[in-house]
Amino acid sequence: MIYGGIEGGGTKWVCAVGNGPDDLQAIVTVPTTTPVETIDHVAAFFAMYPETVALGVGSFGPLDLDERSPRFGTITTTPKPGWAGTDIRALLVSKLDRPIAIETDVGVAALGEGRFGAARGLETFCYMTIGTGIGGGAVVRGEISHGLLHPEFGHMRIPHDRGRDPFAGCCPYHGDCFEGLASGEALRARFGIPADELQAADAWALEADYIALGLMNVVCTLSPQRIILGGGLMKAPGLLSLVRAQVRTLAGDYFDTPALGEGIVDYVVSPALGDRAGVIGALELARIRFASDEDRVPSSARL
Amino acid sequence: MIYGGIEGGGTKWVCAVGNGPDDLQAIVTVPTTTPVETIDHVAAFFAMYPETVALGVGSFGPLDLDERSPRFGTITTTPKPGWAGTDIRALLVSKLDRPIAIETDVGVAALGEGRFGAARGLETFCYMTIGTGIGGGAVVRGEISHGLLHPEFGHMRIPHDRGRDPFAGCCPYHGDCFEGLASGEALRARFGIPADELQAADAWALEADYIALGLMNVVCTLSPQRIILGGGLMKAPGLLSLVRAQVRTLAGDYFDTPALGEGIVDYVVSPALGDRAGVIGALELARIRFASDEDRVPSSARL
Repeated sequence: MIYGGIEGGGTKWVCAVGNGPDDLQAIVTVPTTTPVETIDHVAAFFAMYPETVALGVGSFGPLDLDERSPRFGTITTTPKPGWAGTDIRALLVSKLDRPIAIETDVGVAALGEGRFGAARGLETFCYMTIGTGIGGGAVVRGEISHGLLHPEFGHMRIPHDRGRDPFAGCCPYHGDCFEGLASGEALRARFGIPADELQAADAWALEADYIALGLMNVVCTLSPQRIILGGGLMKAPGLLSLVRAQVRTLAGDYFDTPALGEGIVDYVVSPALGDRAGVIGALELARIRFASDEDRVPSSARL
Repeated sequence: MIYGGIEGGGTKWVCAVGNGPDDLQAIVTVPTTTPVETIDHVAAFFAMYPETVALGVGSFGPLDLDERSPRFGTITTTPKPGWAGTDIRALLVSKLDRPIAIETDVGVAALGEGRFGAARGLETFCYMTIGTGIGGGAVVRGEISHGLLHPEFGHMRIPHDRGRDPFAGCCPYHGDCFEGLASGEALRARFGIPADELQAADAWALEADYIALGLMNVVCTLSPQRIILGGGLMKAPGLLSLVRAQVRTLAGDYFDTPALGEGIVDYVVSPALGDRAGVIGALELARIRFASDEDRVPSSARL
């Protein structure tokens, strides 16, 4: 059986057909334009692969992931023009006659890393992305976690040292929340240049300090066995090392575990699947949700 | 079948025998002195109830809750004199020949509220205590959650407005972490009087703002369906209302749910079991862990 995976992002949608990172029959990228046009392109791709028995979707959000909600599968309050209120799941279902599971982009990235990547063998772990925005997903005892809504790591409140960093923050909702201070968008707004042109060591030290604060709050709440730190900004040379050092400093001697001391290099790690964590995780989501149904034999048949 | 429940705290240990809040055969409180003396008292109580088939313990921490660890059931880095390194579980097992399950005090309080109290019918929720210290526990899909360690809500980092509040914080490990700014100990250190003598409205407004910041970070990470807010400080008149109002303010329009708007009174709530949430939750822990084993019938017997 082969599956379809879709990672829906704010600038591009990635679609894949296969079973995992070493078993991909096809992978394409389509630009994010309007919802209808984008999903038309996605549907046209999967129409070429009728053998995909089910689809997994990891989308940008915020998403309504409450299965009892009439808006299940809808993007809710995104500031992205044209996309707020888009019922992604319904649009895909209307075009593709296959079962479809949906989660956040970061949720499926965590799932992918858990099955094939940097969190193999673990039960409870997180994937955090530091890019244009900041987001995070958690797997708890093997399943993507949500409750009231899904996690929104980017909107945590962290200490903002206004003496060192007078920038007010760029989140349209919260100003100087984690994303408002530490996203790629925040770097561009604070320094006036794109993050990939930013050289100043003190700018990156500040960025590392903010990321470490966000990580510590994840440690104090979800207590993941490992944190996978992806996203475009984390490709900046040296940033991951600065973040790890600052997490150790913030943890101090309180937490009785090597993971927050000399073991930090195995605790805060890069995604083993790189930029494909999301789309591979989306394949895995389809497999988990729908293969298990097929495998499920009625109990009467077992007797 | 009846169970024993133990809530181990820094000032007292509460022991109960029964099945739930409306079915308690006995409940006693013993003062926390040395580990050996305290646990001797606890053991003497349960020796009078040999019909208790298993015990659940919810203890102050930090605790090693890794079942594969040689120190499973040990209090680790507590500053409480005489208690760091105490293997509570081993001490109890040596005195009482019954199966014993152990979790944090706040973890079992969450469990108790889930079965009998303010979180009935929910799958994923949190219990946070604001008292001498600050702690929190989470139930995720019906089970107390831990990963690397257990949650440590009190040691999150939150914004500290030094203009409004020049107090440096009182956490011996982190200074102005959440607990360092907002625990009863922090209030006493900042204002020089115990929290229950504190009248100034601006002091309580500050306290509410800090608690709301902690709650928002829990919302952004664990995304609980409800947060139960217990502990001695939450008995201060009007504090819960101030916290709820500030959570709404902090959430802004970002989160697409009434729970963080007009539904806040049903989202951030007091424990329905009051001060007994912990010990009732400890009974429930014993039931969950050990009754399910008894109920488990070998699959061959079912055929």
